[in-house]
Amino acid sequence: MLCLYTDETFMKEAFKQAQYALEEGEIPIGAVVVCNNKILARAYNQTEKLNDVTAHAEMLAITAAANNLGNKYLHDCTLYVTVEPCPMCAGALHWTQVKRVVYATADEKRGYRKFGNLLHPKTQLETGILQHECADLMSSFFQNKRK
Amino acid sequence: MLCLYTDETFMKEAFKQAQYALEEGEIPIGAVVVCNNKILARAYNQTEKLNDVTAHAEMLAITAAANNLGNKYLHDCTLYVTVEPCPMCAGALHWTQVKRVVYATADEKRGYRKFGNLLHPKTQLETGILQHECADLMSSFFQNKRK
Repeated sequence: MLCLYTDETFMKEAFKQAQYALEEGEIPIGAVVVCNNKILARAYNQTEKLNDVTAHAEMLAITAAANNLGNKYLHDCTLYVTVEPCPMCAGALHWTQVKRVVYATADEKRGYRKFGNLLHPKTQLETGILQHECADLMSSFFQNKRK
Repeated sequence: MLCLYTDETFMKEAFKQAQYALEEGEIPIGAVVVCNNKILARAYNQTEKLNDVTAHAEMLAITAAANNLGNKYLHDCTLYVTVEPCPMCAGALHWTQVKRVVYATADEKRGYRKFGNLLHPKTQLETGILQHECADLMSSFFQNKRK
């Protein structure tokens, strides 16, 4: 069976969001929320633009998806994000009881995983989809910052 | 020296916010952000009203305080909250680099402390101010829920 919708399909959409962040001088992280192969929300990191530390891609995507669904729980949804969520975002994902989280590349410094499993016990986790592209986007952003 | 502004003064303001939450059928948690003895932001939990898991008192107070200050960092501020923050809120507080966090009563189930120190290493922590009042408000909310 030909499957039109794969994790890679949706991670590419999250990657596009990350590219928008880069164009706006933000740390390039993007996220999408998907339910039954439909994208409910797209968002990218806007902490500089909104002058708000809570405006991470995942947080904005969670709020937008809940608005779209009319439900604060995202039981049947998958959140795709280009970088491992931080503890704030993992904690928010816990409250949503989201079905799956898929992230591309780990964040050894500020990723949630070093603090244990902050996600909901029922949430499935997948990693490594488009890992190199998403990691390269982050590296090039920080290299340019240092110049 | 008579000190007009104590931790108790500001925790009482957070407690008032928690009472507003209770009146609206929300889990009764309130928060205020204070800088140089001036309250920059007041907020209470609005997850039901806004249909958004991210609308915790602390998150709303952080965003409002940053708007008020024109700075996403809350280096010179203290956040008062009636209940121990969850990992989402502690993670957000980490990003703000807030000077102090004062909470009234612990949350053994969903508080951040069982996951380690999710706050910024420079953030000072104080607990137990108005502990009984804030704990009683939570207990009475959940007892009424069960009826």
